[in-house]
Amino acid sequence: MDTVTILGLAAAACTTFAFFPQAYKVYKTHHTRDLSMPMYVIFSIGILLWLVYGIIINNLPIICANAVTIVFCIYILAVMVKNRGGKT
Amino acid sequence: MDTVTILGLAAAACTTFAFFPQAYKVYKTHHTRDLSMPMYVIFSIGILLWLVYGIIINNLPIICANAVTIVFCIYILAVMVKNRGGKT
Repeated sequence: MDTVTILGLAAAACTTFAFFPQAYKVYKTHHTRDLSMPMYVIFSIGILLWLVYGIIINNLPIICANAVTIVFCIYILAVMVKNRGGKT
Repeated sequence: MDTVTILGLAAAACTTFAFFPQAYKVYKTHHTRDLSMPMYVIFSIGILLWLVYGIIINNLPIICANAVTIVFCIYILAVMVKNRGGKT
């Protein structure tokens, strides 16, 4: 594998797993007041589109990276929706 | 432009501009307590790697998308670092 491909994979790994610490923080504290609901709605739509795009062009790295990210995003979004009433 | 390319561009637009409402919320409230510092550190590193990757393979959409995202991320991260003392 060439250096450029490794660089691309490292970039994909960072932007994919970056959402884990945020999802973990939300899981531990249940606080989402400072998080932007529009950000997570738009980002989740984007990730879903990436997933469909990856499936259509049959690109496994795109499918895998976005399948992981969508789990974290949907979880964070679900807690935000749940917190809306309580304004936590 | 074919439908699949448009789908990819729509996906890129969503995941790029999703950070704008979060950056705007941070700008308005200056509150970052519920945001995960490790997320923004890892994500910013990832975006920087994507930027370098885009420059090396000379791919304008990758360069543009990540050049925009890095501005929002670095701004959010800067406010988080500034808030660290005050725990806002």
